[in-house]
Amino acid sequence: MTKQTKVVVAGASGKMGSEALRMVEKHDDLTLVGCVDLQHTGMQVKEVEGLPKFDAYFYDNIDTCFESVDADVLIDLTSPKVGYKHTKTAILNGVRPVVGTTGFSNEELKELTELAKEQKIGAVIAPNFAMGAVLMMQFSKWAAKHFPDVEIIEKHHDQKLDAPSGTAVKTAELIQEERTQKKQGHPDEEETIKGARGADFDGMRIHSMRLPGLVAHQEVVFGGPGENLTIKHDSFHRQSFMSGIKFAIDHVLHLDELVYGLEHLMMD
Amino acid sequence: MTKQTKVVVAGASGKMGSEALRMVEKHDDLTLVGCVDLQHTGMQVKEVEGLPKFDAYFYDNIDTCFESVDADVLIDLTSPKVGYKHTKTAILNGVRPVVGTTGFSNEELKELTELAKEQKIGAVIAPNFAMGAVLMMQFSKWAAKHFPDVEIIEKHHDQKLDAPSGTAVKTAELIQEERTQKKQGHPDEEETIKGARGADFDGMRIHSMRLPGLVAHQEVVFGGPGENLTIKHDSFHRQSFMSGIKFAIDHVLHLDELVYGLEHLMMD
Amino acid sequence: MTKQTKVVVAGASGKMGSEALRMVEKHDDLTLVGCVDLQHTGMQVKEVEGLPKFDAYFYDNIDTCFESVDADVLIDLTSPKVGYKHTKTAILNGVRPVVGTTGFSNEELKELTELAKEQKIGAVIAPNFAMGAVLMMQFSKWAAKHFPDVEIIEKHHDQKLDAPSGTAVKTAELIQEERTQKKQGHPDEEETIKGARGADFDGMRIHSMRLPGLVAHQEVVFGGPGENLTIKHDSFHRQSFMSGIKFAIDHVLHLDELVYGLEHLMMD
Amino acid sequence: MTKQTKVVVAGASGKMGSEALRMVEKHDDLTLVGCVDLQHTGMQVKEVEGLPKFDAYFYDNIDTCFESVDADVLIDLTSPKVGYKHTKTAILNGVRPVVGTTGFSNEELKELTELAKEQKIGAVIAPNFAMGAVLMMQFSKWAAKHFPDVEIIEKHHDQKLDAPSGTAVKTAELIQEERTQKKQGHPDEEETIKGARGADFDGMRIHSMRLPGLVAHQEVVFGGPGENLTIKHDSFHRQSFMSGIKFAIDHVLHLDELVYGLEHLMMD
Repeated sequence: MTKQTKVVVAGASGKMGSEALRMVEKHDDLTLVGCVDLQHTGMQVKEVEGLPKFDAYFYDNIDTCFESVDADVLIDLTSPKVGYKHTKTAILNGVRPVVGTTGFSNEELKELTELAKEQKIGAVIAPNFAMGAVLMMQFSKWAAKHFPDVEIIEKHHDQKLDAPSGTAVKTAELIQEERTQKKQGHPDEEETIKGARGADFDGMRIHSMRLPGLVAHQEVVFGGPGENLTIKHDSFHRQSFMSGIKFAIDHVLHLDELVYGLEHLMMD
Repeated sequence: MTKQTKVVVAGASGKMGSEALRMVEKHDDLTLVGCVDLQHTGMQVKEVEGLPKFDAYFYDNIDTCFESVDADVLIDLTSPKVGYKHTKTAILNGVRPVVGTTGFSNEELKELTELAKEQKIGAVIAPNFAMGAVLMMQFSKWAAKHFPDVEIIEKHHDQKLDAPSGTAVKTAELIQEERTQKKQGHPDEEETIKGARGADFDGMRIHSMRLPGLVAHQEVVFGGPGENLTIKHDSFHRQSFMSGIKFAIDHVLHLDELVYGLEHLMMD
Repeated sequence: MTKQTKVVVAGASGKMGSEALRMVEKHDDLTLVGCVDLQHTGMQVKEVEGLPKFDAYFYDNIDTCFESVDADVLIDLTSPKVGYKHTKTAILNGVRPVVGTTGFSNEELKELTELAKEQKIGAVIAPNFAMGAVLMMQFSKWAAKHFPDVEIIEKHHDQKLDAPSGTAVKTAELIQEERTQKKQGHPDEEETIKGARGADFDGMRIHSMRLPGLVAHQEVVFGGPGENLTIKHDSFHRQSFMSGIKFAIDHVLHLDELVYGLEHLMMD
Repeated sequence: MTKQTKVVVAGASGKMGSEALRMVEKHDDLTLVGCVDLQHTGMQVKEVEGLPKFDAYFYDNIDTCFESVDADVLIDLTSPKVGYKHTKTAILNGVRPVVGTTGFSNEELKELTELAKEQKIGAVIAPNFAMGAVLMMQFSKWAAKHFPDVEIIEKHHDQKLDAPSGTAVKTAELIQEERTQKKQGHPDEEETIKGARGADFDGMRIHSMRLPGLVAHQEVVFGGPGENLTIKHDSFHRQSFMSGIKFAIDHVLHLDELVYGLEHLMMD
């Protein structure tokens, strides 16, 4: 019989958290030992409508949880503020954190990195757990070395408020690290309708499409003489994050330091 | 043996004109009887480097040409100004014109239409002879009845000066005829980088990508709850215009009036 | 105040049926008066977990339902066998049926058509209510007139058992009605690995991709000299069927005959 | 003034060779000193119709050429047989070869590798100089580590004889090196028309589309729960190979060994 990894999920009542519970349910090498969430305190997971049939209990704070159960890994899908406290507490309790957040400050990251090093314990913090999105960004960064002409088109449902998307901007920033800076398009090009050429990010262009029916999609298109290279990611469902979380759990058990960004584990 | 249609090509030294000569060469039911062009006057086509091996001669004006040879059809690929005179002369000489231009005024079109009706002679004038592009525009117009949420992304080589492309604007105008007007996207959406949401055309959005390697491409994307419909045209080579010109020749022989726009012949 | 259309949903406990209940809930001009389903008989819709908060009751057969409530339209999302009986009963009771099925025989369709004509009542039966898919098929049929070279690539999740999909075969059949028959590809082409060129349907080719993550997607690609025309449909969610059902309801109220296939209402 | 690299082009009369001459013409840091080709011996390049206006001469064999002119780099775009002799001769003459071929045997490659090492001279031999295609293949290999479910669809003009394309098979082989072997699709899936699921390569599927208008295109689609990652290459023109040849020239000057495959220079 496989040794089972004992998991605590924080933020278990949210959309992501409940998806994480379903992911734990699907994997025989994982077992749920507790949930941290302000809702449902004292209830068993199986008593909450719509959640998998686990016996584990809900705790209203991480300290009580760690006092009550023995855990190997904490999956944290809360807010940056709560997540920071959770991560710290986990490391100090010898529990390896896997944290999904874009919101930690550099100071917080530095502190947590040093703490993990002192405690010789693995930790993974990632702004994006969709493995396909992580690869799209890394491949785009590498392609930009050889193809300085690049445009991004990202497509989302029409309930999205901001344009361009965070992933598009993050992709552009990664490309910028490798790309020889240039102003793209013809020097004399003219927009007969304002905005046609999209957002200008360091000379490259980003276009944001918003339509009902779309979920979350992005194409990064590189152009060179006679050829195009396109790297495209389609996210159809938030399930896509769960493969990345499972991947991080598998790796965090063998780490003795904090790793920020899934790409450092995926690109080995 | 098939009866052969006798063809004159005006603008035969240009890129489009020489492509038209190659098209005539490929079809057994067509034969070239003359070319009109200020260059090469008095030469035979076969004497000009890079052109097919026709015996027909170059004439410097259409009147001389029609006096010298007996023609069924005039393919006109010159400028709007010259093309107008050519079309008129052809109709008056009983030669059926097939004209590629976007530049005729409404007055000119009206006059030519009446002239063709008087003479009971067929004529085809079309702003676009790429049959795939014509279908893309017509299908988009029809889809817009049922899908008022639509965005256009057009992609061209980076030597193109204007954005959006003429075809994108024409497509948007056709969509506008059928679409229930609405302002698309979330009412509170915000561009964190100006231009991200593209050009606003009557509430729908047009995006223009410009990259080396690209030729001429357009996608019209319609969104509805849970689904997307995309109509896409890729023009890889100006050959694409020649199927439409051949199609127009085949039809103009059986017409007794002027038809403006290939769609009226294609949608029957 | 808008006059409300009184709706009965048959098959209301299924995935499609419950989606239909949510659709009724969203539209102010529709009101639910009853459900037909073997499950939940005697319960109110609002008593069933996961369904919208309607007061209407579940009935175990259509006759009892029509005796108990006054209805304008029947939405039938059951099986072909049950659906046939339901449709007949509805017409005889003066209730206009909107039926989603691919399974009626020609004899059944003929009989129902005549019955609707006798009763002078509208009815809509459609194998596909996704409006985007219906347009994709119609546009493909029309494009095939001018582009006899065409290949279909359909992409589905890897739990799908049959290849090609029913929609791909239906599309190919519609194309066949208009396309000049030809064996595509080079006459001497060779498969170095068997199956590379896909399924042969009357000389055109169909390719079936199956991958986790995909939902239901199809591209119909037409090729001509120098150009390609692609008509693509992405179905991301079964919601996509609901716009078509609402569209059929709006039209069935003004019909006095049976219409088979949404395209006849959409293409007017 | 930039130091100029002195270039010899072998196979200069072919389509690729003449494209290479135009590439040399466009770069100020390159200068043409000679051509090797059985045609046009003794003529200057500028005397041959359609070629750039170089003074350099055509030689009928590589030895005469190297005796007559002083060269830094040989661009070889001949056949495998001739190319092998040319590469060897170049290395022995202190001229750095850049060779485009898929046809060298392992023995030949081994011998040339040792020869370059002895002579401490750079050499680049590559089966594919389209930088976008090389990246597509490398990225696909890396993605396959994390996404064992993958299908390839390659699209070419309908004059192509073999299916799947060489690039598709090469891509599949690279994926195979990293992918955990599995039989994709549902275990019980059935083809209702033979070939629908494409070519089976080690459990993954390859589909070959052939249509007029297409040039050379490939999509590699990876599927995981809730997401897809697609890597796509479009080759619109053989120009696409020239950026890779220029890239190889720039690198070969600083190498002291033979490198096989452009990826080893691009991925540094």
